[in-house]
Amino acid sequence: MAKRYVVGIDIGGTHTVFGIVDTDGHIVACDKIMTGEYPELSDYISSLAKAVTEQISANGLEGQIEGIGIGAPAVNHNTGVIEGAVDLPWPSPIPLKEMMESATGLPVSATNDANAAAIGEQIYGAGRGLSDFIILTLGTGIGSGIVSDGHLVHGHRGLAGELGHTIIRPGGRQCSCGRKGCLETYASARGIVHTAIEMIAEFPDMKSVLSEIPPKDLCSADIGNAAANGDQLAIRVLKYTGEILGEACANFCAYSSPQAIVFFGGVTKAGDHLINPIRESLAKHILYIYKDQVEITTSQLPHNDAAVLGAAAAAW
Amino acid sequence: MAKRYVVGIDIGGTHTVFGIVDTDGHIVACDKIMTGEYPELSDYISSLAKAVTEQISANGLEGQIEGIGIGAPAVNHNTGVIEGAVDLPWPSPIPLKEMMESATGLPVSATNDANAAAIGEQIYGAGRGLSDFIILTLGTGIGSGIVSDGHLVHGHRGLAGELGHTIIRPGGRQCSCGRKGCLETYASARGIVHTAIEMIAEFPDMKSVLSEIPPKDLCSADIGNAAANGDQLAIRVLKYTGEILGEACANFCAYSSPQAIVFFGGVTKAGDHLINPIRESLAKHILYIYKDQVEITTSQLPHNDAAVLGAAAAAW
Repeated sequence: MAKRYVVGIDIGGTHTVFGIVDTDGHIVACDKIMTGEYPELSDYISSLAKAVTEQISANGLEGQIEGIGIGAPAVNHNTGVIEGAVDLPWPSPIPLKEMMESATGLPVSATNDANAAAIGEQIYGAGRGLSDFIILTLGTGIGSGIVSDGHLVHGHRGLAGELGHTIIRPGGRQCSCGRKGCLETYASARGIVHTAIEMIAEFPDMKSVLSEIPPKDLCSADIGNAAANGDQLAIRVLKYTGEILGEACANFCAYSSPQAIVFFGGVTKAGDHLINPIRESLAKHILYIYKDQVEITTSQLPHNDAAVLGAAAAAW
Repeated sequence: MAKRYVVGIDIGGTHTVFGIVDTDGHIVACDKIMTGEYPELSDYISSLAKAVTEQISANGLEGQIEGIGIGAPAVNHNTGVIEGAVDLPWPSPIPLKEMMESATGLPVSATNDANAAAIGEQIYGAGRGLSDFIILTLGTGIGSGIVSDGHLVHGHRGLAGELGHTIIRPGGRQCSCGRKGCLETYASARGIVHTAIEMIAEFPDMKSVLSEIPPKDLCSADIGNAAANGDQLAIRVLKYTGEILGEACANFCAYSSPQAIVFFGGVTKAGDHLINPIRESLAKHILYIYKDQVEITTSQLPHNDAAVLGAAAAAW
């Protein structure tokens, strides 16, 4: 009997990465297209379908692909429609599942990108063997996937798990969602840059390489790199960010009592300068009945692998 | 074949209510003992076991009882042990399941009282037909039960769902858990009395019957009654409470995207003076993707019935 495969696709604001995955979770081929190069949605879908089909042919796997799994921002798991994704170049709603099924002739399953990452971590990464964990993806925004009793929490319309939009500072920073004080405004890549710009102004006497970068060019990687080189202002920015994340995690524990909270995404490259303050703040803010029960950890898979594997797992 | 029955027991700080329940969810007999009259835990367990056994005999149901289900504060669902309940007269941990099994010779299943109420509402009350809802019990403290995809969220050690201990005002009111700003410090019966005492001092010109009650005697029922009689200060207290509850509910929606949030417990007797501000505040604070999808409602079962039926359902 021929081996069976699925295609996993991770749609991000910059890249769309896709790969053919076998039943053992091996990525047998991987490629990408640039999401931002297609102002027209129909051109993007055609190009993506063509690239996927060519990859299947190039690997001699025609007829052996069971289906396609896609992880994308703000996908409604129940309908496969993207609802209100602010980081993609096309207006929502986007009937992603329907368009990709029509373009490829394969069955498509689509889920929130953070949920796909959670599935990837559960099967292959930091979530292996865990029945209760939360994944937080720190990127341009903050995504989240919640696994409870071994199952992803989808909610009644498939849009559960927007932990980046829980209010951590009532009346605080303005969020792109229209409200104020969302976790995302403090702990996403944009939130961290916001904190750095505030602290550069607040502490003019602290010598920092960050103050030499024009604010509009400053990115979270600059802050992580500066901290790695011992820059005290950058370390302070990450400490402040970690403290707020630890407070937020204490609230999340009172919800689903997870064994672990797994951090994921570009911002986590800042490493211990971010993760240690999260752990300290969580220990300080957690309700006593959950004390010492929650591990704070980072993804154990390369970013694209977890996303592609998770999307593929959703297709099986 | 003989009909089958279980016993449902609801352990509260004041009363312990118990009843024999048939497979159709009818309470065929119901009674109670006073929890607070037993300074010794072993005396309490003996009396409760005796009362239950006598009730079974009085109804001629010896040999037809399948088991006992108990709802109690701070029970670990996995172990049946009460961990850190501050409203009971005995020190924790209390091996409730083990003690009751030994005293009655029947299999016992024990769960958090708010979880038991959630099961009761799911089978017989406001949660019927809903796969995703949250129950909030507003009493001396705040309990919660979360149903996601039709299942109670237990967490990895059986203690999930302490939504009363999510921080709604960082640095706010001192909570009995040792932290500051928990939802419970604002919206429990004690929290509402705290608000009334603050507002009486803040608005000395507002004529209110509440200012005539010595602060140590003031209870949440006084505030509900005064509001029902048009007392403007009492109405203001409930409005403030409802606004904070609405903010908290907006955060809960970003977690599990429920169809409904069901309020339960003595404080909800304040009715529309509390529920309408919750609805208005939720509409104002909810993330746009969840807008108009979440019903705010109150329990549709008499308090003891939901608790006893839920505890019984846990035994089946």
